[in-house]
Amino acid sequence: MSRHSRHPEAGIGERAWIAGLRNRAEVLPGMALKGRALRLGIGDDCAILQPPAGHQVLVTTDFSLETVHFRRQWHTPESAGHRCLARGLSDIAAMGGNPLAAFLSLALPMELTRSEAGRPSWRERFLAGFLALGQKFDVPLAGGDTARSPRPTAPGSGTGLALADIVVIGSAPKDRAIRRSGARPGDRIYVTGQLGGAAAELAQLAAHPRLFRDCTKGVNGSSNPHPHLFPEPRLGAGTWLLKNRRATAAIDISDGLSTDLDHLCEESGVAAVVEWAALPLHPLAADLPASEAQRLALHGGEDYELLFTASPRRKIPRRIAGVPIACIGEIRRVEPGKPRILLCELGLERPLLPGGWEH
Amino acid sequence: MSRHSRHPEAGIGERAWIAGLRNRAEVLPGMALKGRALRLGIGDDCAILQPPAGHQVLVTTDFSLETVHFRRQWHTPESAGHRCLARGLSDIAAMGGNPLAAFLSLALPMELTRSEAGRPSWRERFLAGFLALGQKFDVPLAGGDTARSPRPTAPGSGTGLALADIVVIGSAPKDRAIRRSGARPGDRIYVTGQLGGAAAELAQLAAHPRLFRDCTKGVNGSSNPHPHLFPEPRLGAGTWLLKNRRATAAIDISDGLSTDLDHLCEESGVAAVVEWAALPLHPLAADLPASEAQRLALHGGEDYELLFTASPRRKIPRRIAGVPIACIGEIRRVEPGKPRILLCELGLERPLLPGGWEH
Repeated sequence: MSRHSRHPEAGIGERAWIAGLRNRAEVLPGMALKGRALRLGIGDDCAILQPPAGHQVLVTTDFSLETVHFRRQWHTPESAGHRCLARGLSDIAAMGGNPLAAFLSLALPMELTRSEAGRPSWRERFLAGFLALGQKFDVPLAGGDTARSPRPTAPGSGTGLALADIVVIGSAPKDRAIRRSGARPGDRIYVTGQLGGAAAELAQLAAHPRLFRDCTKGVNGSSNPHPHLFPEPRLGAGTWLLKNRRATAAIDISDGLSTDLDHLCEESGVAAVVEWAALPLHPLAADLPASEAQRLALHGGEDYELLFTASPRRKIPRRIAGVPIACIGEIRRVEPGKPRILLCELGLERPLLPGGWEH
Repeated sequence: MSRHSRHPEAGIGERAWIAGLRNRAEVLPGMALKGRALRLGIGDDCAILQPPAGHQVLVTTDFSLETVHFRRQWHTPESAGHRCLARGLSDIAAMGGNPLAAFLSLALPMELTRSEAGRPSWRERFLAGFLALGQKFDVPLAGGDTARSPRPTAPGSGTGLALADIVVIGSAPKDRAIRRSGARPGDRIYVTGQLGGAAAELAQLAAHPRLFRDCTKGVNGSSNPHPHLFPEPRLGAGTWLLKNRRATAAIDISDGLSTDLDHLCEESGVAAVVEWAALPLHPLAADLPASEAQRLALHGGEDYELLFTASPRRKIPRRIAGVPIACIGEIRRVEPGKPRILLCELGLERPLLPGGWEH
């Protein structure tokens, strides 16, 4: 952990900001229980964590880079901060783990760190979105790094971009974390929540960039009204599956159902068939023409739902931790020369390629 | 952990590259012992680590951003990769910890991932430098993230920059990690190795950018010949200090002696005096005019030596883990209205400000 602050004004401003952050990040209301894992947070060379006895440590890291993962024109700072942490929490959820602490490396151009006319800076609003999600799941911000983001080398090409990298440390009981590699032929395939909503909302944003300029937080109803801007990591469902030993394998849907199911099948050495009619469409996707809805649900990505497999002999409830669960297909044996994943529609099976790309 | 690969050719290339990395990163020679902490590496939603029994978990994260922390014109890719990992390992060393695994988030413009005419790509050479240092300290690369780096938004402003973020997970016996906050008045102040060498070599690079184009690795003699390009994290010294309970506080010198000593004093609630004549100058700094040598040794930064304090009743050897140790000053009580750190030169004491900046 370090601060790069070679210029005096940057150094002093940076130091004051980190000191303020230290107070806000570690002493969040309701964090008493989980906070016990965090023995030392911001302010030393490393943070110190004490995982629960008998647990192993889970580690995940994910970029959130402006123009790659979000756009300042489309996403409010609160949404960018929420999405940054959600990416990491979703990986912990996919293993059935319990998040212990988050670490944020954040490089920003100078203008995003300035508050003007009493209004909070982009950085403050990004952190508000980040910390609100952390608070919801009792995950303290325990460290990270800050830097001025690099300027483009050519003159006149503007200032730098907002660059973030999130690390989430979690824990799971020894040898119990749910891996991608445990699916077996005959297992049923399940998803949490609804599919295609994130991609549908992203398409709305692309068409109307200022549509959600005032949207700072999603409201939780039966469907997440902002599946792209404020995705919900499925931590409750993940820990339930681990605790009740129901899942043979799991992965989160970050790259899209077709791609992530392919990853799971590859790691497990199995094949799969997906039943089109069984896919739970998000209302934002269901409202679109059928072919577009299908494309978004199968290949859209960033739904951050869990995709998991379970033995046909294990009962899976229709809701887990308040989230609806749908059975969408079945794991099969790999057959040489046949595609790894098939999509079954009206009784006909055809190849389902990762990302929908034909060779 | 995830891969962002929405374009088919990028997706397939990325997947093949990560598959290859998985084999190289986890099965390094001589990694049998440490590797036992790593239960699951690249290829799932999270990595799984099993820290030694009775240990706590240390976490550190540091950016390595092109134009901020390194320059493609000055640094060989091997040096950039080595420095990236060294930053993280040095933070673990400063707590007296033992590194268990590293995680690398790496965003690159397309052209740095291409090998041409049979010569390895910039990415391959960066990783060679990274993995060579990991191998030296038995630290496997256990995960991370990859992305295409964002392009500048203005047309004609070139391709993107190389962006890296390193996470190192370490461990230390419960409640034994050496913190910044334990220094007490009367304690002696020590440094490992030599100071000012990294800044002196950086000044050489700035003046003659192509000076070290063929330099792919430092040679270990009595002085590190390339203290900037290939800094040596002081892991051996750190673990010795923890094991033998000799240090009351420690920090690594990343921002410069004056700044990092100020951090240590701030966290410990103490003041300090540094004896100029006692500072161990690196030969590259010692060869410069006296005022310049002093500036580099006090404020230069990136030496990645350890700065630690110890009770005057505890004997500190002249070498620890093969590295020379110098006593450079003493911790004092804070006196209101007096500067936190003083520099003593020829018997005269004057304020030593962090970074050398006057108010």
